[in-house]
Amino acid sequence: MNTIGTDFRITLFGSSHGPVVGCTIDGCPPGLPLDERMFENDLALRRPHPGIGTPRRESDDLRMLSGIKDGITTGTPITLTIANKDVDSSKYERFKAVPRPGHADYPAMMKYGEHHDIAGGGQFSGRMTAAMVVAGTVAKAILSTIDVQVGAYTRSIAEVVDGDVHSITHILEERGNNPVRAASADMVPKMMDEILAAGEDDDSVGGIIQCHCEGLPVGVGEPFFDTVEGEISKMLFSIPGVKGVGFGAGFGATKVRGSENNDSFALIEGRVITVTNRHGGVLGGMTSGMPIMMRVALKPTASIGKEQRSVDLATMRETTLKIEGRHDPCIVPRAVVVVESAVAMVMADLCIRGGFIE
Amino acid sequence: MNTIGTDFRITLFGSSHGPVVGCTIDGCPPGLPLDERMFENDLALRRPHPGIGTPRRESDDLRMLSGIKDGITTGTPITLTIANKDVDSSKYERFKAVPRPGHADYPAMMKYGEHHDIAGGGQFSGRMTAAMVVAGTVAKAILSTIDVQVGAYTRSIAEVVDGDVHSITHILEERGNNPVRAASADMVPKMMDEILAAGEDDDSVGGIIQCHCEGLPVGVGEPFFDTVEGEISKMLFSIPGVKGVGFGAGFGATKVRGSENNDSFALIEGRVITVTNRHGGVLGGMTSGMPIMMRVALKPTASIGKEQRSVDLATMRETTLKIEGRHDPCIVPRAVVVVESAVAMVMADLCIRGGFIE
Amino acid sequence: MNTIGTDFRITLFGSSHGPVVGCTIDGCPPGLPLDERMFENDLALRRPHPGIGTPRRESDDLRMLSGIKDGITTGTPITLTIANKDVDSSKYERFKAVPRPGHADYPAMMKYGEHHDIAGGGQFSGRMTAAMVVAGTVAKAILSTIDVQVGAYTRSIAEVVDGDVHSITHILEERGNNPVRAASADMVPKMMDEILAAGEDDDSVGGIIQCHCEGLPVGVGEPFFDTVEGEISKMLFSIPGVKGVGFGAGFGATKVRGSENNDSFALIEGRVITVTNRHGGVLGGMTSGMPIMMRVALKPTASIGKEQRSVDLATMRETTLKIEGRHDPCIVPRAVVVVESAVAMVMADLCIRGGFIE
Amino acid sequence: MNTIGTDFRITLFGSSHGPVVGCTIDGCPPGLPLDERMFENDLALRRPHPGIGTPRRESDDLRMLSGIKDGITTGTPITLTIANKDVDSSKYERFKAVPRPGHADYPAMMKYGEHHDIAGGGQFSGRMTAAMVVAGTVAKAILSTIDVQVGAYTRSIAEVVDGDVHSITHILEERGNNPVRAASADMVPKMMDEILAAGEDDDSVGGIIQCHCEGLPVGVGEPFFDTVEGEISKMLFSIPGVKGVGFGAGFGATKVRGSENNDSFALIEGRVITVTNRHGGVLGGMTSGMPIMMRVALKPTASIGKEQRSVDLATMRETTLKIEGRHDPCIVPRAVVVVESAVAMVMADLCIRGGFIE
Repeated sequence: MNTIGTDFRITLFGSSHGPVVGCTIDGCPPGLPLDERMFENDLALRRPHPGIGTPRRESDDLRMLSGIKDGITTGTPITLTIANKDVDSSKYERFKAVPRPGHADYPAMMKYGEHHDIAGGGQFSGRMTAAMVVAGTVAKAILSTIDVQVGAYTRSIAEVVDGDVHSITHILEERGNNPVRAASADMVPKMMDEILAAGEDDDSVGGIIQCHCEGLPVGVGEPFFDTVEGEISKMLFSIPGVKGVGFGAGFGATKVRGSENNDSFALIEGRVITVTNRHGGVLGGMTSGMPIMMRVALKPTASIGKEQRSVDLATMRETTLKIEGRHDPCIVPRAVVVVESAVAMVMADLCIRGGFIE
Repeated sequence: MNTIGTDFRITLFGSSHGPVVGCTIDGCPPGLPLDERMFENDLALRRPHPGIGTPRRESDDLRMLSGIKDGITTGTPITLTIANKDVDSSKYERFKAVPRPGHADYPAMMKYGEHHDIAGGGQFSGRMTAAMVVAGTVAKAILSTIDVQVGAYTRSIAEVVDGDVHSITHILEERGNNPVRAASADMVPKMMDEILAAGEDDDSVGGIIQCHCEGLPVGVGEPFFDTVEGEISKMLFSIPGVKGVGFGAGFGATKVRGSENNDSFALIEGRVITVTNRHGGVLGGMTSGMPIMMRVALKPTASIGKEQRSVDLATMRETTLKIEGRHDPCIVPRAVVVVESAVAMVMADLCIRGGFIE
Repeated sequence: MNTIGTDFRITLFGSSHGPVVGCTIDGCPPGLPLDERMFENDLALRRPHPGIGTPRRESDDLRMLSGIKDGITTGTPITLTIANKDVDSSKYERFKAVPRPGHADYPAMMKYGEHHDIAGGGQFSGRMTAAMVVAGTVAKAILSTIDVQVGAYTRSIAEVVDGDVHSITHILEERGNNPVRAASADMVPKMMDEILAAGEDDDSVGGIIQCHCEGLPVGVGEPFFDTVEGEISKMLFSIPGVKGVGFGAGFGATKVRGSENNDSFALIEGRVITVTNRHGGVLGGMTSGMPIMMRVALKPTASIGKEQRSVDLATMRETTLKIEGRHDPCIVPRAVVVVESAVAMVMADLCIRGGFIE
Repeated sequence: MNTIGTDFRITLFGSSHGPVVGCTIDGCPPGLPLDERMFENDLALRRPHPGIGTPRRESDDLRMLSGIKDGITTGTPITLTIANKDVDSSKYERFKAVPRPGHADYPAMMKYGEHHDIAGGGQFSGRMTAAMVVAGTVAKAILSTIDVQVGAYTRSIAEVVDGDVHSITHILEERGNNPVRAASADMVPKMMDEILAAGEDDDSVGGIIQCHCEGLPVGVGEPFFDTVEGEISKMLFSIPGVKGVGFGAGFGATKVRGSENNDSFALIEGRVITVTNRHGGVLGGMTSGMPIMMRVALKPTASIGKEQRSVDLATMRETTLKIEGRHDPCIVPRAVVVVESAVAMVMADLCIRGGFIE
């Protein structure tokens, strides 16, 4: 359903071509400063960058309907809405009959039937992630009260991979300065090339987003089931296009011996650390005090201009389909702040649950 | 916490060196035949295989305390316990002071303090997965009423990879016939070699488990947040050692173009299918009717005989640590049925939630 | 927190003196006709009646932000907001220091601190119940698809009691025709007299609301814990002013013998019924097929014009307090539709959970 | 379903005539002393008293399966089972066809069908409350760490009412000293007479249980929906036989003016109190710091020896039914400790949720 979280709880609503998308955030502590600029900064990271994005102009007209008074949270639920504009629903009606490959159209039709609001992808549209972003703004503000930071960046586009390790400070400084949301300036042209080339071919590319969360106390997470990895991955898989998640060495951990994969404990200035961080900051489902590090696989955008094979559900015949208009040849750059928000929401919830934040 | 699921709900209890591990299963429909042999078959798949496993003899003495009468479920909660035997807690006390690398010891001590029952890993022990297995037996029985099958097998051990695609029938027939729980007889010796070599070096190896779920109707899953992938991955990350999850092409999807990654729709005997299954049976968080296919990364066993660096939390000095006794050089084979159970539990829950099973 | 329900789930937001109060409703089936008039009819029942109500003019300017398209539900979350108008917050600031007897001021200050938005009672205001009413409109529309009806009326004001038993048809026809929301025309003058007399004395009165729910199938409710009575009473106690709930004979059942209190089973036209309905339609936490009948005790309005004793929390001295302006001398009539909505929301949720509504 | 609570969570299992009834308790802090004697003392209060009770001898053979080590909680889930003995299921089979008036038989048959384990009332048996009692023992131990006490007693049996107000100390000292669990020694003979007279007539009586909870901090409770009254009443209505709940003045509040019903604030030794406690310790759904006081209406035992009218569901004809054997003519005395446990469980949960207990 559309609510997630235990002590910090988010409910999403709206759809791509309705009046708004929005969220209600329950469990935000009172007294937290939150102003429009903070929301706007995060929303800006999600907007399509000129040159590589969709032509849909999203002005992200934000309204704070409840829970914030004079720029300070009151402790009651925060409701935020973002108006939808520039909407042309007409071209979507056809996808009820002829589902687009790689999209939710087919199972959504089977599950919700004719009343399913398919326009713009309806509830399955990437537009819903705008509401996740502003909920993430609130979560990041909460985490900042205990000096926890969350930052994501584009690790790879297709085969172009940024193999460097970046500090959270570097990530947060750099990822807004370039259209692909990379952490390394020298990766930008190569990643851009991949995206533009795909666009020119009426095709698309995917990539990997890396996300770090630093400054966490030890012991955040509520095993057996409500583990840090489990809660984060559940949230991440609700982002359209995510197909894989790995923590620390992730799938790479399967290829080395235990003696190499185990991170030794050591002391630095009286503080317990691990010498390496192949465990990605989580042991036994709880934070170890080391940075949480994860990689998130995003498939290439499903909407492409190329002709594709599908089935006409009305006539039950095979057919072909061309998705008109221009589309994002790569959603990875725009998803960077969404992943960041998703991780922030989960960690705010787990920190509050564990009593690390009041 | 220790409860998961919405309409089919599992609560785990017990610890490695207490009297029992067990589970309470709420939401199982009445009238389902369930006998001891079904539980025993699944537990047998989890027991260490002579030659590659731990020497701890787990007889898995099962008791059905409630919810089953004369081999038929009554519709009330099912409580199952498995007695713990062959317990030697003495050697674990030291890990409260000197946490084992790669284990939950350190965050658990920080979170739960001195009363934390560390013996045998306490609540973080792999022993807890025995309780997941019997809950999985119930879930698989429920799914079988609508002809849904779940099967897992060892896809890789270290660098030895089974690249073949297997049918669920083949998986379920084959995976019990060999110690590594492989689906291909010809992979067995190579995988065995990896495991035995690691054991001889007082070291360990990890690997990848592949799991399929077939026969599902279209539209199972409750987006926005309670997606098939999200619910499954949350459950999977509670299995000790899991560090990554991918659906369908998973991380591989990030490297190809959309035109290659999108699975075309077609008709076979009047039924809508996709020609390929790179989406892994899930679109928009809901089942597409194609088999769910996922890969689960398990790190090498954290307990190894080699000397490792750690910190003595009592004296706050760096130290070294050797874990005595023999340990599983590879948990992947035993985790195969655990992954299978985890997936079955989630799919039973989502099928009941969606009204696909009464 | 501000979310309730399992399969039909309501999240409330807003506060009395913020821009809006509103709710997000998750789990409403697609294809349900819902128009503004239906909401308006229910909101009208909650508005103060000229002559006995508060002077605050509530125009209840409703907006449907999501989930309804062309008057039909889409299956995605429904968000409804009601604009707040006619707001004068200035007079409330004082209650942060000097809590009003019978109000939430004191515990709210202790719990939420200085940032607590106390204006108009903030989140504890009766204004929040406007959002419950429109959620109830949706719930009643859902229940009507299986011919279930919910209706409430004023059973008593102070000592004036309507001892008659009314059919649901009669209740629904009658309760909107008079200012006290009574089901018997002849009770109206006496109830009015009680309310007006209290108002003239700068005082207030309470009363009992009776609510029926008819047409339910047998077996709705999810014991052991999610009983019909338990779920309804949890919802009811969130309505400001509710202090007691009884089902069927309620407290009266404690005074008679079992042979008198047990309702005999009988057959009418092949249908199992009970000859009497002292059990109030619920046996073992599940519906029996007989009408659910409950009584809800509402205390007299806490806001009265009379001088009252309180404590100044800033100076920690005893003091007195007079609440200026005019207030509802009796909230019972306005709460009738709120109780109706609360019961409808719970029964819609339990009917969906039990598979009685798809 | 069979799980309740958020941060302190109880799952019940078992049935009257299965091997055990039991519970799993999640969220109990580590380091809490808990010994068998504490459980035994509470179970003893629930056992039938010679002379007025059922002849079923319940020895309450308790087993602690997990979560307690050397008499100290470990922080992992606590599982407790109580063996069932002295079981004669044969006489219950008939009630599947001919439902007993006032019992769950009829809706349970309609809901769960033929596999419903009706023996001894199955999951609807009062026997389940034994598991609530031991969960309550744990909750009371948790509350005692912040000096919160819970105590209940029999306020009335039929028309015999104890109108006195009792301190919690007095209640806890007195209620175990007499068979009816009264707080006033002089009420005992009159209450006994009512019960014995009903028993001699093959009939039964009900009554009212009063419960107090003292020592609570201000601000416990999580409105809007998770109010103290709402959470407690949901729990209470799961106790078989409960038909009404009132807090403070309860239904009595409906008959007086606001000026009489509002409790004035005052200072005692620098502490804010209310001069009276008609609000029953809860304002706006949160604790006020005054004792929580509630009354719980229990109907007369449904099982009576007198001949009653019912319907044969197999033949669909009206018939009569006599329940053989001896039955509790009054469950009120045995339910006293169950109510106490229910209230303790909820308050432990809300105190942990609110951060008042770590």
